[in-house]
Amino acid sequence: MKKDYTQIISKIDTVAEKIYNDFQKSEIPSLNLPTRTKTNIKFNEKLNVWKYGKGVSERTAKSLDGAYMLLRTMYMADFIKEMIKLKKSSTLREMYYISEGWDLAKFHTQQESNFLAEDLEVITACMREDFKLRPEEDGARVIGNITVEELTRNNTKKKIHCQDDVGDAGYSIPYNVESEKLTITSADADFIIAIETGGMFDRLVENGFDTSNRAILVHLKGQPARSTRRFIKRLNEKIKIPVLIFTDCDPWSYRIFASIAYGAIKTAHISEYLATPASHYLGVTPSDIENYDLPTDDLTKEDINALKSELSDPRFQDSFWKGEIKLQLKMGKKSEQQALAKYGLDYVTDKYLPEKLAELGLLKK
Amino acid sequence: MKKDYTQIISKIDTVAEKIYNDFQKSEIPSLNLPTRTKTNIKFNEKLNVWKYGKGVSERTAKSLDGAYMLLRTMYMADFIKEMIKLKKSSTLREMYYISEGWDLAKFHTQQESNFLAEDLEVITACMREDFKLRPEEDGARVIGNITVEELTRNNTKKKIHCQDDVGDAGYSIPYNVESEKLTITSADADFIIAIETGGMFDRLVENGFDTSNRAILVHLKGQPARSTRRFIKRLNEKIKIPVLIFTDCDPWSYRIFASIAYGAIKTAHISEYLATPASHYLGVTPSDIENYDLPTDDLTKEDINALKSELSDPRFQDSFWKGEIKLQLKMGKKSEQQALAKYGLDYVTDKYLPEKLAELGLLKK
Repeated sequence: MKKDYTQIISKIDTVAEKIYNDFQKSEIPSLNLPTRTKTNIKFNEKLNVWKYGKGVSERTAKSLDGAYMLLRTMYMADFIKEMIKLKKSSTLREMYYISEGWDLAKFHTQQESNFLAEDLEVITACMREDFKLRPEEDGARVIGNITVEELTRNNTKKKIHCQDDVGDAGYSIPYNVESEKLTITSADADFIIAIETGGMFDRLVENGFDTSNRAILVHLKGQPARSTRRFIKRLNEKIKIPVLIFTDCDPWSYRIFASIAYGAIKTAHISEYLATPASHYLGVTPSDIENYDLPTDDLTKEDINALKSELSDPRFQDSFWKGEIKLQLKMGKKSEQQALAKYGLDYVTDKYLPEKLAELGLLKK
Repeated sequence: MKKDYTQIISKIDTVAEKIYNDFQKSEIPSLNLPTRTKTNIKFNEKLNVWKYGKGVSERTAKSLDGAYMLLRTMYMADFIKEMIKLKKSSTLREMYYISEGWDLAKFHTQQESNFLAEDLEVITACMREDFKLRPEEDGARVIGNITVEELTRNNTKKKIHCQDDVGDAGYSIPYNVESEKLTITSADADFIIAIETGGMFDRLVENGFDTSNRAILVHLKGQPARSTRRFIKRLNEKIKIPVLIFTDCDPWSYRIFASIAYGAIKTAHISEYLATPASHYLGVTPSDIENYDLPTDDLTKEDINALKSELSDPRFQDSFWKGEIKLQLKMGKKSEQQALAKYGLDYVTDKYLPEKLAELGLLKK
């Protein structure tokens, strides 16, 4: 499937048109976009994900900073159109350096350029991938009974089975997993396990958990890249099986879960593309620390603040999360998924996962 | 090729035997090993790499800490023998948690357990891979005209061509690249370019530099994992072509170069397995910052200290490095490889790399 870049260009042009028209009408040029903070995300019942609410921020040339902002937006729009024309793509870091040639519109920090790229997504309702912009982050890895077809840089289609055609490191998810680049041609499994650390991913691979339990294993590599979240979403849409999130037991890992299940605050404008509502948090939970008597570390001040902030995060308001977070604050402890090795290398696949899957009603004999 | 694990077990047993004999002779048990610091590495003319010198440290039960240390060594030796028997492997993190069951020998930090694993390598002259221990770090990625044969977890051999049989993300180097696991069956190229950042690796891939310039591209992912350094070494031994290191322009990147070309200080006991003396630093150099007028950042205090420390590092004593490091300290600036995007996305492949390759006498028409 070919992406309709004409449509994307026309959406980008609309932004320039708005500014142009403001000038024509002798009005101070401005752009409106939703406020992108925790206080402005609302649960969308129809889409089953968290999206921005009605809060609106204005980018206006009333201030010098605002004027620079709009100028940068025009340069960036131009750069994106050029890339689409030349069939190139660029990292966000490269775009930051490209702006050296934009005179007054030059970015001063990479945060500025990343933020503007997201703004442009919000304004045009396109995705960064449409703009041919990509992050530094690598995509993560997959092992399981799934076949993907990737359109490679040489314009050839390559079918790859993520057990039979790859090494033990698995299939590396490319930075663009949209349908013009990647198709999931077949997949047969009972559930997807998305795993935070490489060590635990490799453990499940070495122990053959993908074949013994009909699981597709996805390595998240910490806070997952967009392409990883999008890949999980597309896989879930394709075969409609549950996604189980298996992470460390600390507030940062809960955010990993939230970004996959509900959508991240920074990218709430595209939650319906990135979030997989059919995700369950498998563990490690604070209750697991008690039930399995796991090795722990003390919560740091930052951990405690992050947990408290999650108590007021609209995505963590159900009884499960409220209960677990309060328990953890009371215990003052955190743990890691690899701490299960306390009981030996096979404990996680022989005992912990089967028990947790049974709890979720997912254990097949 | 099957690894001779009997030999490895017997080397491990020798360590236990030494302690046992000390007890038998009513001597305080102890183990000697080379001092693992910058001051104790010497250039080995025969091997063409940096190795530990004659400085020796003693681990002895004279002190309580030393006694714990030796106790841990025995537990670790036992754990490794068990893994070899069961054909399992373990991450260093898992071993740290496994030690929860070692009673008084329990590790208190992961640094302790990592360090002891290295000590055991030094004492036995084995490699961590022989011990079935592996790091958390992922292996990096490769794209180029090279075919590898990987023995997968199912005991089947899989041939993978690193252009035709992989997606655009390339072939992921597994954590073990020793000959019992991975063979390079064929490779045809003029040089290897080892690249620090994923963004630049992807740029060279998108621009087709591997085919247009007969290059094998290796993504280092920052400070390269052992498996990446070992892979480069084995590739260089196989086809005897130069290895060009392409990194950011800062002291940390020079250490990346040094660890590939000369051997890292921490792993100097196995430099001849990990280091590739046929490596050249391609750039970005402080001279490049001036010659190409690249965007820069100011050196931080940490950068300056690291540069000064390199001036006294025996691996950086030739005129090239002395000159460049002094120039950088004078300029007070650093830069990134992606800063070349200042001149557009193709500048690095159309202009910068050809010019640098010509300087090194490596440009083929």
